[in-house]
Amino acid sequence: MALLQGANPLTRGPHVEADFSPSAPAPRLGFVSFGASRLEPGSGSLGLSVGPGERSSFPAPIRAVNETRAAHINGRADGAQGENLDQISPVGNSANIKWHQCSVGKLDRQELLQQKGCVIWITGLSGSGKSTVACALSRALHSRGKLTFVLDGDNVRHGLNRDLSFKAEDRAENIRRIGEVAKLFSDAGVICIASLISPYRKDRAACRALLPEGDFIEVFMDVPLQVCEARDPKGLYKLARSGKIKGFTGIDDPYEPPLDCEIVLKQTERDCASPCDMAEQVISYLEEKGYLMA
Amino acid sequence: MALLQGANPLTRGPHVEADFSPSAPAPRLGFVSFGASRLEPGSGSLGLSVGPGERSSFPAPIRAVNETRAAHINGRADGAQGENLDQISPVGNSANIKWHQCSVGKLDRQELLQQKGCVIWITGLSGSGKSTVACALSRALHSRGKLTFVLDGDNVRHGLNRDLSFKAEDRAENIRRIGEVAKLFSDAGVICIASLISPYRKDRAACRALLPEGDFIEVFMDVPLQVCEARDPKGLYKLARSGKIKGFTGIDDPYEPPLDCEIVLKQTERDCASPCDMAEQVISYLEEKGYLMA
Repeated sequence: MALLQGANPLTRGPHVEADFSPSAPAPRLGFVSFGASRLEPGSGSLGLSVGPGERSSFPAPIRAVNETRAAHINGRADGAQGENLDQISPVGNSANIKWHQCSVGKLDRQELLQQKGCVIWITGLSGSGKSTVACALSRALHSRGKLTFVLDGDNVRHGLNRDLSFKAEDRAENIRRIGEVAKLFSDAGVICIASLISPYRKDRAACRALLPEGDFIEVFMDVPLQVCEARDPKGLYKLARSGKIKGFTGIDDPYEPPLDCEIVLKQTERDCASPCDMAEQVISYLEEKGYLMA
Repeated sequence: MALLQGANPLTRGPHVEADFSPSAPAPRLGFVSFGASRLEPGSGSLGLSVGPGERSSFPAPIRAVNETRAAHINGRADGAQGENLDQISPVGNSANIKWHQCSVGKLDRQELLQQKGCVIWITGLSGSGKSTVACALSRALHSRGKLTFVLDGDNVRHGLNRDLSFKAEDRAENIRRIGEVAKLFSDAGVICIASLISPYRKDRAACRALLPEGDFIEVFMDVPLQVCEARDPKGLYKLARSGKIKGFTGIDDPYEPPLDCEIVLKQTERDCASPCDMAEQVISYLEEKGYLMA
């Protein structure tokens, strides 16, 4: 099988011809086909399979390598080739669920995107500016060619979490599901920006635990309650104070500030950075930790 | 504000300098900063906001345009500038949820990725080769520089849907959640490949209805039960026949084949295309419909 190697193919359209010149400024890269023998349907073999977060057998999207290599499953090197790489593990309510390894891994997608997938978890009181910073951050990263996606606590309640109420267990489930979806986006190589009050440390810790070390970046919007309440952009504090909303965070339900989060964005009545400046603080962290490169 | 325009910035690293030469083969593009005045925290204004699927005010990630333009919300042109573009709509269990528009829209992400976000929904019996085709498809698309993500019915049960059993309402909820997550990935600009039995037309139709016209591409693995059962890659048919699994699709629970799906991948005992060939059939469809370009 030929070895094709070149620049990021994201700028290539479909149906381009292969160009083997390494010095071409924009090498045109063609479609690499793979032998079908390792992917016979029903054989149970998923061929060149890797675990989530593992680089697949062909590290670059436009690189075909010799078929003699080891596959990795869940970080464990495995020399098996063409064997059934599925793993059975008992989960949830049934043991009849297999974990399907897929041939394109997180590292492949990261190489394609030239970034590392992660979750930026923005927590803070209502009115602390979470969504505003999330937007500014996604825009600033996008302007640098980075792929982001904002999961907003409120927005997700319009879709995935529309079945959930605001009672305690449903609020926890709301956060759990957003954490799981954020993890999927991170696996996809996306910089996922989750913006939700998430008042309890326990719930945030559970989401952090879903992700590989370092990939959960907790950002605390450190804004005094009185500042948030004075802003009251949605009029919710007023409703809470008048008793029309029960269990409102900061009023009659506690907010537990992070004890060891990665980033604190502090605002006071007198000192308030612009959303762009706050976004830049987060971007500096991402750069320093290497998330803005593959 | 300067107008910067150039090639896809995905290949650019951070901290590169702006280069205004349009003839440069790989223009170096800098970070475009935006006025903070429209994003004051707590003002309730999200500034240059657009609805999901709408292009934001700056169509290319590396293009800054004049600030005088209309914003679009939910496909409706809106001349409001700097006003509160949040919309309140009653959803789920509370009317106190606002839909936050974000400044980077689906069209921006699609331009970055040079593809269109969509959901490829692979349905069929257990053992019909759904996961195998999903893997082959993701690999073939990745080799063309396209960003894909596979949502596998089984895999999602390890995370997001780990609380769900296999009883009827939980199976429906399993599909609903995967449909909602697939929609989020599609909004992110990703080609999302959902691979799950999803035996009932009603459940598949509900997922289709979540997406814009054309963005739900249903792929039917048309494989006779006896072929799937002969393969029995997970040994589940054997368990179902012996009564150890109840309500197994194709055995004691019905599979409703699609009546009007976009793609049928037919296999018989005698005639079975390779997964790569089947993936190519799907890719031809995507190309024809313009999903492999922005």
